[in-house]
Amino acid sequence: MEILPRALTALIVELGHLPGVGPKSAHRLAFHLLRQERGSVERLSRALAELKDGVGFCEICGFISEGPRCVICADQRRDPGLLCVVEEATDVIAVERTGEFRGRYHVLGGAISPIDGVGPGEIRVEELLARLRQDGVSEVILATDVDVEGEATSAYLAQVIGELGGAIKISRLARGLPMGGELEYADELTIARALSGRRPF
Amino acid sequence: MEILPRALTALIVELGHLPGVGPKSAHRLAFHLLRQERGSVERLSRALAELKDGVGFCEICGFISEGPRCVICADQRRDPGLLCVVEEATDVIAVERTGEFRGRYHVLGGAISPIDGVGPGEIRVEELLARLRQDGVSEVILATDVDVEGEATSAYLAQVIGELGGAIKISRLARGLPMGGELEYADELTIARALSGRRPF
Repeated sequence: MEILPRALTALIVELGHLPGVGPKSAHRLAFHLLRQERGSVERLSRALAELKDGVGFCEICGFISEGPRCVICADQRRDPGLLCVVEEATDVIAVERTGEFRGRYHVLGGAISPIDGVGPGEIRVEELLARLRQDGVSEVILATDVDVEGEATSAYLAQVIGELGGAIKISRLARGLPMGGELEYADELTIARALSGRRPF
Repeated sequence: MEILPRALTALIVELGHLPGVGPKSAHRLAFHLLRQERGSVERLSRALAELKDGVGFCEICGFISEGPRCVICADQRRDPGLLCVVEEATDVIAVERTGEFRGRYHVLGGAISPIDGVGPGEIRVEELLARLRQDGVSEVILATDVDVEGEATSAYLAQVIGELGGAIKISRLARGLPMGGELEYADELTIARALSGRRPF
Protein backbone atom coordinates (compact mmCIF):
# COMPACT_ATOMS: atom_id res chain seq x y z
CA MET A 1 0.00 0.00 0.00
CA GLU A 2 1.27 3.45 -0.91
CA ILE A 3 1.10 5.53 2.24
CA LEU A 4 2.30 8.81 0.73
CA PRO A 5 0.12 11.25 -1.22
CA ARG A 6 0.59 11.03 -4.99
CA ALA A 7 1.95 14.61 -5.25
CA LEU A 8 4.68 13.83 -2.74
CA THR A 9 5.65 10.55 -4.41
CA ALA A 10 5.84 12.34 -7.78
CA LEU A 11 8.20 14.93 -6.32
CA ILE A 12 10.40 12.25 -4.72
CA VAL A 13 10.67 10.48 -8.09
CA GLU A 14 11.65 13.67 -9.93
CA LEU A 15 14.16 14.76 -7.26
CA GLY A 16 15.71 11.29 -7.46
CA HIS A 17 16.66 12.00 -11.09
CA LEU A 18 19.03 14.78 -10.03
CA PRO A 19 22.72 13.90 -10.02
CA GLY A 20 24.02 12.90 -6.62
CA VAL A 21 20.51 12.53 -5.17
CA GLY A 22 19.69 8.96 -4.17
CA PRO A 23 16.33 7.69 -2.90
CA LYS A 24 17.07 8.72 0.71
CA SER A 25 18.17 12.25 -0.22
CA ALA A 26 15.13 12.60 -2.49
CA HIS A 27 12.90 11.71 0.47
CA ARG A 28 14.75 14.13 2.72
CA LEU A 29 14.56 16.97 0.19
CA ALA A 30 10.85 16.37 -0.48
CA PHE A 31 10.00 16.44 3.24
CA HIS A 32 12.12 19.54 3.66
CA LEU A 33 10.16 21.26 0.88
CA LEU A 34 6.89 20.10 2.45
CA ARG A 35 7.82 21.97 5.62
CA GLN A 36 8.77 25.18 3.77
CA GLU A 37 6.36 28.04 3.29
CA ARG A 38 4.43 27.98 0.03
CA GLY A 39 6.27 30.97 -1.46
CA SER A 40 9.68 29.35 -1.29
CA VAL A 41 8.52 26.16 -3.02
CA GLU A 42 6.74 28.20 -5.67
CA ARG A 43 9.85 30.26 -6.36
CA LEU A 44 11.83 27.09 -7.03
CA SER A 45 9.05 25.71 -9.22
CA ARG A 46 8.91 28.94 -11.22
CA ALA A 47 12.69 29.15 -11.61
CA LEU A 48 12.61 25.66 -13.13
CA ALA A 49 9.67 26.48 -15.38
CA GLU A 50 11.42 29.59 -16.69
CA LEU A 51 14.80 27.94 -17.15
CA LYS A 52 14.33 26.56 -20.64
CA ASP A 53 12.71 29.70 -22.03
CA GLY A 54 15.03 32.14 -20.32
CA VAL A 55 18.31 30.45 -21.17
CA GLY A 56 19.74 29.67 -24.59
CA PHE A 57 23.16 29.43 -26.16
CA CYS A 58 25.29 32.14 -27.72
CA GLU A 59 25.32 31.76 -31.50
CA ILE A 60 28.98 32.77 -31.62
CA CYS A 61 30.77 30.99 -28.78
CA GLY A 62 28.22 28.45 -27.54
CA PHE A 63 28.24 29.79 -23.96
CA ILE A 64 24.88 30.10 -22.21
CA SER A 65 23.06 33.29 -22.98
CA GLU A 66 19.77 35.10 -22.54
CA GLY A 67 19.63 36.36 -26.14
CA PRO A 68 21.37 35.32 -29.36
CA ARG A 69 24.74 36.62 -28.06
CA CYS A 70 26.20 36.05 -24.61
CA VAL A 71 27.37 38.98 -22.52
CA ILE A 72 31.01 38.12 -23.19
CA CYS A 73 30.68 38.10 -27.00
CA ALA A 74 28.58 41.28 -26.79
CA ASP A 75 31.21 43.05 -24.68
CA GLN A 76 33.25 45.30 -26.99
CA ARG A 77 36.02 45.63 -24.40
CA ARG A 78 36.99 41.94 -24.65
CA ASP A 79 40.02 41.25 -26.84
CA PRO A 80 38.78 39.56 -30.05
CA GLY A 81 42.32 38.40 -30.86
CA LEU A 82 42.54 35.99 -27.92
CA LEU A 83 40.32 32.91 -27.90
CA CYS A 84 40.08 30.43 -25.02
CA VAL A 85 38.69 27.04 -26.08
CA VAL A 86 36.93 25.06 -23.33
CA GLU A 87 34.84 21.90 -23.16
CA GLU A 88 31.82 23.16 -21.24
CA ALA A 89 30.01 26.37 -20.29
CA THR A 90 30.95 25.75 -16.66
CA ASP A 91 34.62 26.02 -17.68
CA VAL A 92 33.95 29.57 -18.92
CA ILE A 93 32.65 30.44 -15.47
CA ALA A 94 35.74 28.90 -13.85
CA VAL A 95 38.10 30.96 -16.04
CA GLU A 96 36.01 34.13 -15.59
CA ARG A 97 36.21 33.69 -11.84
CA THR A 98 39.97 34.33 -12.01
CA GLY A 99 39.34 37.82 -13.40
CA GLU A 100 42.57 37.36 -15.38
CA PHE A 101 41.29 36.65 -18.87
CA ARG A 102 40.17 39.49 -21.14
CA GLY A 103 39.71 37.55 -24.38
CA ARG A 104 36.75 35.57 -25.69
CA TYR A 105 35.70 31.94 -25.51
CA HIS A 106 34.68 29.02 -27.65
CA VAL A 107 32.67 26.29 -25.94
CA LEU A 108 33.10 22.90 -27.63
CA GLY A 109 30.22 21.23 -25.82
CA GLY A 110 32.26 18.18 -24.90
CA ALA A 111 35.53 16.43 -25.67
CA ILE A 112 36.55 13.90 -28.28
CA SER A 113 35.99 10.41 -26.87
CA PRO A 114 35.86 7.57 -29.42
CA ILE A 115 34.76 5.13 -26.70
CA ASP A 116 31.63 7.25 -26.13
CA GLY A 117 31.09 7.75 -29.85
CA VAL A 118 32.08 11.43 -29.69
CA GLY A 119 34.22 12.47 -32.67
CA PRO A 120 35.18 15.96 -33.89
CA GLY A 121 31.81 16.15 -35.68
CA GLU A 122 29.90 15.82 -32.41
CA ILE A 123 31.53 18.85 -30.76
CA ARG A 124 31.76 22.42 -32.08
CA VAL A 125 35.05 22.07 -33.98
CA GLU A 126 33.70 23.23 -37.35
CA GLU A 127 32.31 26.37 -35.70
CA LEU A 128 35.72 27.03 -34.12
CA LEU A 129 37.55 26.70 -37.45
CA ALA A 130 34.99 28.97 -39.11
CA ARG A 131 35.64 31.63 -36.45
CA LEU A 132 39.40 31.30 -36.87
CA ARG A 133 39.13 31.73 -40.64
CA GLN A 134 37.34 35.09 -40.21
CA ASP A 135 37.77 36.57 -36.81
CA GLY A 136 41.30 37.93 -36.70
CA VAL A 137 42.25 35.68 -33.80
CA SER A 138 45.98 35.81 -33.05
CA GLU A 139 46.17 33.29 -30.19
CA VAL A 140 44.13 30.24 -29.29
CA ILE A 141 44.45 28.95 -25.71
CA LEU A 142 43.43 25.28 -25.52
CA ALA A 143 41.90 24.96 -22.04
CA THR A 144 40.38 21.48 -22.19
CA ASP A 145 40.37 19.21 -19.14
CA VAL A 146 43.61 17.48 -18.16
CA ASP A 147 42.31 13.95 -18.77
CA VAL A 148 42.55 11.50 -21.69
CA GLU A 149 39.62 13.01 -23.62
CA GLY A 150 40.70 16.60 -22.98
CA GLU A 151 44.28 15.91 -24.03
CA ALA A 152 43.13 14.10 -27.19
CA THR A 153 40.83 16.99 -28.03
CA SER A 154 43.58 19.57 -27.58
CA ALA A 155 46.01 17.50 -29.68
CA TYR A 156 43.42 17.21 -32.46
CA LEU A 157 42.58 20.93 -32.33
CA ALA A 158 46.27 21.94 -32.39
CA GLN A 159 46.66 19.89 -35.55
CA VAL A 160 43.63 21.20 -37.46
CA ILE A 161 44.26 24.80 -36.38
CA GLY A 162 47.86 24.41 -37.61
CA GLU A 163 46.55 23.16 -40.96
CA LEU A 164 44.58 26.41 -41.37
CA GLY A 165 47.89 28.13 -42.04
CA GLY A 166 48.04 31.75 -40.94
CA ALA A 167 49.99 32.95 -37.95
CA ILE A 168 47.72 31.77 -35.12
CA LYS A 169 49.66 31.09 -31.94
CA ILE A 170 48.43 27.97 -30.11
CA SER A 171 49.03 27.61 -26.38
CA ARG A 172 47.64 25.59 -23.55
CA LEU A 173 47.24 26.07 -19.82
CA ALA A 174 50.31 25.35 -17.70
CA ARG A 175 50.39 22.07 -15.81
CA GLY A 176 52.08 21.68 -12.46
CA LEU A 177 51.41 21.70 -8.76
CA PRO A 178 48.09 23.28 -7.79
CA MET A 179 48.29 26.35 -5.55
CA GLY A 180 48.18 25.36 -1.90
CA GLY A 181 49.03 21.81 -2.89
CA GLU A 182 51.57 19.96 -0.80
CA LEU A 183 54.29 18.18 -2.74
CA GLU A 184 53.92 15.15 -0.49
CA TYR A 185 50.31 14.62 -1.53
CA ALA A 186 50.60 15.42 -5.25
CA ASP A 187 50.28 12.42 -7.57
CA GLU A 188 53.34 11.29 -9.50
CA LEU A 189 52.06 12.42 -12.91
CA THR A 190 51.52 15.95 -11.62
CA ILE A 191 55.00 16.03 -10.06
CA ALA A 192 56.54 14.65 -13.28
CA ARG A 193 54.76 17.40 -15.27
CA ALA A 194 55.85 20.06 -12.77
CA LEU A 195 59.45 18.83 -13.09
CA SER A 196 59.56 18.72 -16.87
CA GLY A 197 57.82 22.11 -17.04
CA ARG A 198 60.08 23.77 -14.45
CA ARG A 199 60.79 27.49 -14.88
CA PRO A 200 63.85 29.57 -13.94
CA PHE A 201 63.40 31.15 -10.52
CA MET B 1 29.38 41.84 -14.46
CA GLU B 2 26.82 39.05 -14.29
CA ILE B 3 27.68 36.64 -17.09
CA LEU B 4 24.82 34.19 -16.51
CA PRO B 5 21.25 34.68 -17.74
CA ARG B 6 18.84 35.89 -15.07
CA ALA B 7 16.73 32.71 -15.23
CA LEU B 8 19.77 30.55 -14.52
CA THR B 9 20.97 32.74 -11.65
CA ALA B 10 17.48 32.63 -10.13
CA LEU B 11 17.48 28.83 -10.27
CA ILE B 12 20.95 28.64 -8.69
CA VAL B 13 19.77 30.88 -5.83
CA GLU B 14 16.67 28.75 -5.19
CA LEU B 15 18.54 25.44 -5.40
CA GLY B 16 21.07 26.84 -2.93
CA HIS B 17 18.31 27.06 -0.31
CA LEU B 18 17.90 23.26 -0.28
CA PRO B 19 19.48 21.47 2.68
CA GLY B 20 22.93 20.09 1.91
CA VAL B 21 23.21 22.07 -1.34
CA GLY B 22 26.01 24.64 -1.23
CA PRO B 23 26.83 27.21 -3.93
CA LYS B 24 28.92 24.73 -5.96
CA SER B 25 26.27 21.99 -5.88
CA ALA B 26 23.60 24.54 -6.80
CA HIS B 27 25.67 25.51 -9.87
CA ARG B 28 26.21 21.87 -10.78
CA LEU B 29 22.51 21.00 -10.40
CA ALA B 30 21.42 24.05 -12.42
CA PHE B 31 23.78 23.20 -15.28
CA HIS B 32 22.66 19.60 -15.16
CA LEU B 33 19.03 20.72 -15.49
CA LEU B 34 19.98 23.05 -18.34
CA ARG B 35 21.28 20.05 -20.27
CA GLN B 36 18.16 17.96 -19.65
CA GLU B 37 15.30 17.77 -22.11
CA ARG B 38 12.49 20.23 -21.48
CA GLY B 39 9.99 17.57 -20.37
CA SER B 40 12.09 16.39 -17.45
CA VAL B 41 12.63 19.91 -16.07
CA GLU B 42 8.93 20.67 -16.48
CA ARG B 43 7.96 17.51 -14.60
CA LEU B 44 10.08 18.60 -11.64
CA SER B 45 8.65 22.11 -11.80
CA ARG B 46 5.10 20.75 -11.87
CA ALA B 47 5.73 18.30 -9.02
CA LEU B 48 6.89 21.24 -6.90
CA ALA B 49 3.94 23.41 -7.92
CA GLU B 50 1.47 20.66 -7.02
CA LEU B 51 3.14 19.74 -3.74
CA LYS B 52 1.41 22.22 -1.46
CA ASP B 53 -2.06 21.68 -2.92
CA GLY B 54 -1.79 17.89 -3.16
CA VAL B 55 -0.42 17.22 0.30
CA GLY B 56 -1.96 18.01 3.64
CA PHE B 57 -2.00 16.54 7.11
CA CYS B 58 -4.27 13.89 8.60
CA GLU B 59 -6.71 15.48 11.05
CA ILE B 60 -6.42 12.47 13.34
CA CYS B 61 -2.77 11.50 13.54
CA GLY B 62 -0.93 14.41 11.89
CA PHE B 63 0.75 12.23 9.27
CA ILE B 64 0.87 13.56 5.71
CA SER B 65 -2.23 12.87 3.73
CA GLU B 66 -4.00 13.64 0.48
CA GLY B 67 -7.42 14.12 2.09
CA PRO B 68 -8.57 14.86 5.66
CA ARG B 69 -7.55 11.34 6.78
CA CYS B 70 -4.31 9.56 5.95
CA VAL B 71 -4.40 6.07 4.46
CA ILE B 72 -3.31 4.54 7.77
CA CYS B 73 -6.09 6.12 9.84
CA ALA B 74 -8.58 5.26 7.08
CA ASP B 75 -7.48 1.61 7.05
CA GLN B 76 -10.04 -0.40 9.10
CA ARG B 77 -7.62 -3.34 9.39
CA ARG B 78 -5.15 -1.38 11.54
CA ASP B 79 -5.40 -2.09 15.26
CA PRO B 80 -6.96 1.00 16.94
CA GLY B 81 -5.79 -0.22 20.35
CA LEU B 82 -2.08 0.21 19.60
CA LEU B 83 -0.70 3.71 19.13
CA CYS B 84 2.88 4.52 18.11
CA VAL B 85 3.92 8.09 18.98
CA VAL B 86 6.66 9.57 16.78
CA GLU B 87 8.23 12.99 16.32
CA GLU B 88 7.95 13.41 12.56
CA ALA B 89 6.06 12.08 9.53
CA THR B 90 9.31 10.58 8.24
CA ASP B 91 9.43 8.41 11.37
CA VAL B 92 6.07 6.87 10.37
CA ILE B 93 7.62 5.88 7.04
CA ALA B 94 10.61 4.36 8.82
CA VAL B 95 8.38 2.23 11.07
CA GLU B 96 6.07 1.28 8.18
CA ARG B 97 9.10 0.09 6.21
CA THR B 98 9.61 -2.69 8.76
CA GLY B 99 6.17 -4.15 7.90
CA GLU B 100 5.97 -5.22 11.56
CA PHE B 101 3.59 -2.67 13.00
CA ARG B 102 -0.19 -3.04 12.60
CA GLY B 103 -1.35 -0.28 14.90
CA ARG B 104 -1.84 3.43 14.30
CA TYR B 105 0.33 6.51 14.75
CA HIS B 106 0.42 9.89 16.36
CA VAL B 107 2.83 12.42 14.88
CA LEU B 108 3.92 15.04 17.43
CA GLY B 109 5.48 17.37 14.89
CA GLY B 110 8.68 17.79 16.89
CA ALA B 111 10.16 17.14 20.30
CA ILE B 112 10.21 19.13 23.52
CA SER B 113 13.29 21.34 23.52
CA PRO B 114 13.27 24.27 25.97
CA ILE B 115 16.46 25.65 24.43
CA ASP B 116 14.63 26.04 21.09
CA GLY B 117 11.51 27.35 22.78
CA VAL B 118 9.53 24.17 22.06
CA GLY B 119 7.35 23.16 25.01
CA PRO B 120 4.49 20.62 25.19
CA GLY B 121 2.15 23.29 23.80
CA GLU B 122 4.17 23.58 20.58
CA ILE B 123 3.84 19.90 19.67
CA ARG B 124 0.68 17.82 19.34
CA VAL B 125 0.47 16.61 22.95
CA GLU B 126 -3.07 17.90 23.61
CA GLU B 127 -4.30 16.08 20.49
CA LEU B 128 -2.62 12.88 21.73
CA LEU B 129 -4.28 13.10 25.15
CA ALA B 130 -7.66 13.80 23.52
CA ARG B 131 -7.27 10.63 21.42
CA LEU B 132 -6.31 8.61 24.45
CA ARG B 133 -9.35 9.84 26.36
CA GLN B 134 -11.70 8.57 23.65
CA ASP B 135 -10.11 6.07 21.38
CA GLY B 136 -9.93 2.84 23.32
CA VAL B 137 -6.14 2.72 23.05
CA SER B 138 -4.67 -0.03 25.21
CA GLU B 139 -0.95 0.50 24.51
CA VAL B 140 1.10 3.56 23.61
CA ILE B 141 4.57 2.96 22.16
CA LEU B 142 6.78 6.00 22.64
CA ALA B 143 9.04 6.00 19.58
CA THR B 144 10.75 9.38 19.82
CA ASP B 145 14.38 9.81 18.80
CA VAL B 146 17.10 8.55 21.13
CA ASP B 147 18.56 11.99 21.85
CA VAL B 148 18.14 14.51 24.66
CA GLU B 149 14.97 16.07 23.19
CA GLY B 150 13.41 12.73 22.29
CA GLU B 151 14.11 11.26 25.73
CA ALA B 152 12.72 14.35 27.46
CA THR B 153 9.60 14.19 25.29
CA SER B 154 9.02 10.51 26.06
CA ALA B 155 9.54 11.09 29.77
CA TYR B 156 7.03 13.95 29.73
CA LEU B 157 4.48 11.94 27.72
CA ALA B 158 4.82 8.90 30.00
CA GLN B 159 4.01 11.16 32.93
CA VAL B 160 0.96 12.91 31.45
CA ILE B 161 -0.42 9.67 29.98
CA GLY B 162 -0.04 8.05 33.39
CA GLU B 163 -1.98 10.95 34.94
CA LEU B 164 -4.92 10.17 32.62
CA GLY B 165 -5.55 7.13 34.77
CA GLY B 166 -7.09 4.19 32.91
CA ALA B 167 -5.17 1.05 32.04
CA ILE B 168 -3.05 2.29 29.16
CA LYS B 169 0.21 0.37 28.85
CA ILE B 170 3.18 2.61 27.98
CA SER B 171 6.22 1.12 26.29
CA ARG B 172 9.16 2.37 24.34
CA LEU B 173 11.43 0.99 21.63
CA ALA B 174 14.25 -1.25 22.80
CA ARG B 175 17.74 0.24 22.90
CA GLY B 176 20.85 -1.79 22.20
CA LEU B 177 23.29 -2.71 19.49
CA PRO B 178 22.00 -1.99 15.98
CA MET B 179 21.67 -4.99 13.66
CA GLY B 180 24.88 -5.56 11.72
CA GLY B 181 26.71 -3.35 14.19
CA GLU B 182 30.12 -4.46 15.39
CA LEU B 183 30.65 -4.28 19.12
CA GLU B 184 34.10 -2.78 18.57
CA TYR B 185 32.67 0.27 16.82
CA ALA B 186 29.60 0.85 19.00
CA ASP B 187 29.78 3.92 21.25
CA GLU B 188 30.02 3.42 25.00
CA LEU B 189 26.50 4.68 25.76
CA THR B 190 24.99 2.15 23.34
CA ILE B 191 27.04 -0.68 24.83
CA ALA B 192 26.07 0.43 28.37
CA ARG B 193 22.39 0.39 27.34
CA ALA B 194 22.77 -3.00 25.68
CA LEU B 195 24.37 -4.35 28.85
CA SER B 196 21.78 -3.00 31.26
CA GLY B 197 18.99 -4.16 28.95
CA ARG B 198 20.41 -7.65 28.38
CA ARG B 199 17.93 -10.48 27.85
CA PRO B 200 18.15 -14.19 28.68
CA PHE B 201 19.44 -16.18 25.72
